Amino acid sequence: MQTIDYDQIFSGRELVPAIVQDDATGEVLMLAYMNRESLRLTIETGTTWFFSRSRQKLWNKGETSGNKQTVRSIWLDCDADTILIKATPAGPACHTGNRTCFFTQLQ
Amino acid sequence: MQTIDYDQIFSGRELVPAIVQDDATGEVLMLAYMNRESLRLTIETGTTWFFSRSRQKLWNKGETSGNKQTVRSIWLDCDADTILIKATPAGPACHTGNRTCFFTQLQ
Repeated sequence: MQTIDYDQIFSGRELVPAIVQDDATGEVLMLAYMNRESLRLTIETGTTWFFSRSRQKLWNKGETSGNKQTVRSIWLDCDADTILIKATPAGPACHTGNRTCFFTQLQ
Repeated sequence: MQTIDYDQIFSGRELVPAIVQDDATGEVLMLAYMNRESLRLTIETGTTWFFSRSRQKLWNKGETSGNKQTVRSIWLDCDADTILIKATPAGPACHTGNRTCFFTQLQ
């Protein structure tokens, strides 16, 4: 385990991509972006928080739908510029109702 | 299955994040960035190609190390701005020798 070095992760960038994976099934559910504050809130609340690039605001996944994601563990990649969150979803990750946002297979 | 609409994926952006997941184990191995050409090469060659932001050039994962990733399927998320690649890795994904780049657990 490593103490979170926010300055390392957010050095020279406001946002980093965060992958959410179902802790039980291994399914990749979604990718969204985190800023310093959303990472802090994710750790503090134990549910996933992101920063919406289109709406330019923080959002707590599932706040409206009820499909919150309970964080089980947080991982950082070797470059310290991508976050992987293993979580237990209370329902579908996708706003379309699909379990995962990655439901479209390309040829 | 959907035919790839490069204009949709790369509309208004040069790069999209691509998550690589081990097709057999479900482990998330790495995240790198793809431009139009690297997605085309990935499909054409059946191995993963990315665009390095620091070196500003295309790279074929495993070209030097031998640890190529054989593509099993390619998925697009609901916003069409993130790619998920399920692949069979010939060896460690990480340049550190770790199987996955996400080997650092945060508190």
